[in-house]
Amino acid sequence: MAPIGVNRQWIYKQRPQDAVGVEHFEMREVALPTAGAGQLLVRVLVASVSPGQRAWMMTDTYRPRLQPGEVMASYGLAEVVESRSEGFTPGDIVDGDFGWQDYAVVAPGAVRRRQAGIPLEWLVGVLNLTGFAAHVGLFEVARPRPGETVVVSGAGGATGCVAVQLAKLAGCRVVAIAGGAAKGQWLVEDLGADAAVDYKSGDLDGQLQAACPEGIDVYFDNTGGEILAAVLARMNAHGRVACCGSVSQYNQDDWGEGPRGVPGVLVAKRIRMQGFVVFDHLHRRPNVESGFLELLRSGKLKAPVQTVDGLENAPQALIDLLEGRNRGKMMVSVASPRQPR
Amino acid sequence: MAPIGVNRQWIYKQRPQDAVGVEHFEMREVALPTAGAGQLLVRVLVASVSPGQRAWMMTDTYRPRLQPGEVMASYGLAEVVESRSEGFTPGDIVDGDFGWQDYAVVAPGAVRRRQAGIPLEWLVGVLNLTGFAAHVGLFEVARPRPGETVVVSGAGGATGCVAVQLAKLAGCRVVAIAGGAAKGQWLVEDLGADAAVDYKSGDLDGQLQAACPEGIDVYFDNTGGEILAAVLARMNAHGRVACCGSVSQYNQDDWGEGPRGVPGVLVAKRIRMQGFVVFDHLHRRPNVESGFLELLRSGKLKAPVQTVDGLENAPQALIDLLEGRNRGKMMVSVASPRQPR
Repeated sequence: MAPIGVNRQWIYKQRPQDAVGVEHFEMREVALPTAGAGQLLVRVLVASVSPGQRAWMMTDTYRPRLQPGEVMASYGLAEVVESRSEGFTPGDIVDGDFGWQDYAVVAPGAVRRRQAGIPLEWLVGVLNLTGFAAHVGLFEVARPRPGETVVVSGAGGATGCVAVQLAKLAGCRVVAIAGGAAKGQWLVEDLGADAAVDYKSGDLDGQLQAACPEGIDVYFDNTGGEILAAVLARMNAHGRVACCGSVSQYNQDDWGEGPRGVPGVLVAKRIRMQGFVVFDHLHRRPNVESGFLELLRSGKLKAPVQTVDGLENAPQALIDLLEGRNRGKMMVSVASPRQPR
Repeated sequence: MAPIGVNRQWIYKQRPQDAVGVEHFEMREVALPTAGAGQLLVRVLVASVSPGQRAWMMTDTYRPRLQPGEVMASYGLAEVVESRSEGFTPGDIVDGDFGWQDYAVVAPGAVRRRQAGIPLEWLVGVLNLTGFAAHVGLFEVARPRPGETVVVSGAGGATGCVAVQLAKLAGCRVVAIAGGAAKGQWLVEDLGADAAVDYKSGDLDGQLQAACPEGIDVYFDNTGGEILAAVLARMNAHGRVACCGSVSQYNQDDWGEGPRGVPGVLVAKRIRMQGFVVFDHLHRRPNVESGFLELLRSGKLKAPVQTVDGLENAPQALIDLLEGRNRGKMMVSVASPRQPR
């Protein structure tokens, strides 16, 4: 918790040359900002930690590259403390890009009010952009059919663990790629994957072959790199790859070589490989999230969350995430709501 | 010309470790085959030479890998000499996979009768699979809109030079990538490209930037490799890549590393990269070829062909093609039709 009247901010200090470390961030304490006319002052409750943050540090993506000196960018959930906008009242729960800090002043158009009475653990992952990304990649981009084999990499991550569950609900055979036997066991036993592949085992190809005896029809790619190349090699004709992210590239200064065999393997097998960004599909979000909420309430969909307490631990949470030490959505708990909801 | 009663065959002798050479083929003379019941004996008029042949030698593609000892596979045009099938009569022009040889015995279902009175130079390229591939890649896969910038690599090749012309007819700005200034000049002056890029110039990135001031919306990829990576780096959001072939990979035993930046660049720019094989689209072929025939007759579409005389020169023609020494469709003239058409 921040002292009263103080806003703690994690400043993005310098661009990593290699892996992200705590030295790339610096905490600063500044005075509480004030809301101007039409603005909102919000208190951050939960800060999101996601692999995309590494990409934002390194390069222009769907957003301009982060510049040293800026508050570290981060989606999150916040509570309205002061509203100078007619549409909002104190206590409203909103989400938006608040950054790693205790308080933010934002324009109403930059936030979204969330329905009251829903656990923050649901709102931050499954009912936020990471869960929505699982829907978009699977159903807007890859479009698996029942009975097809769907492989998800980064399956233990926020998006991956939703993609695994959605593909299973859609009647597919689901193979989850994650690091370590324990994470694989969790994906099979708790989240319903038909099989797990441990990419750290040293026998990715062999495990993939054993787990996908009928080849691979759809690949939800969160990693890129060697895993992508290995999956392409096992893919069936007319396979589809939804490129959601490439966490294998995020910890490199230069994105490096692409997956072996591209584009020859795409031609021979008529594979469609398609990158997507959730922001292009936001018109579908309300319907998708209503559906997710029903699935969560009925217990058919789980919302795995890993919580790190305290804004001061946000950089370490990102480092842990990039090293694959999370199960489900990684979130930093910054504060508790003051207002009853 | 073959001696009477003799069938010359180019045998695929051994798998290349590096570039294709004449030593990978061996000519054999065998007796004229005879047509069994229901079969056709055909005399090859034109043998096609195409980059795909290199791929067939190296690996399983949409067809099983060629085995040493087999007649070198090749599409071509042939004249029916003897028909033991009701639907065909001597003198019919047919196309099919006859291989590099003077005569072949084939099943009627494996050939297609071509309309009489059309120049062989049209039938072998624009009105065959290479021309059809230009249609499929552009209009079934990439789907450019008028005003968009379309880049075609391997633009001097059989498929590329049709893709350039079709994209231009569709109202796009067309940039042709080919090797050498002379080929580029030909593509601009004779085939209507708006600009040409010489990938051998040593300044691919700079030339591409100059030729595509508004970025690239659609890429018709015949090469893969560094050209693909350079185009992806200049591509606009929502760009589409039709992966038709990867000639840069054909002269390698191992397909090697993929294009730099994949899949990260696909995600950031929402790029769709899609391999295709013409055989999946054959239901559209009659309509497409009728349209092409009208365009050819009206002079709006040209059918560039490079003819090599004599079956004995087929291996060298393939070597020349793989080194980029062709303009348009490379064909080997094996014999002239005996029957009036």
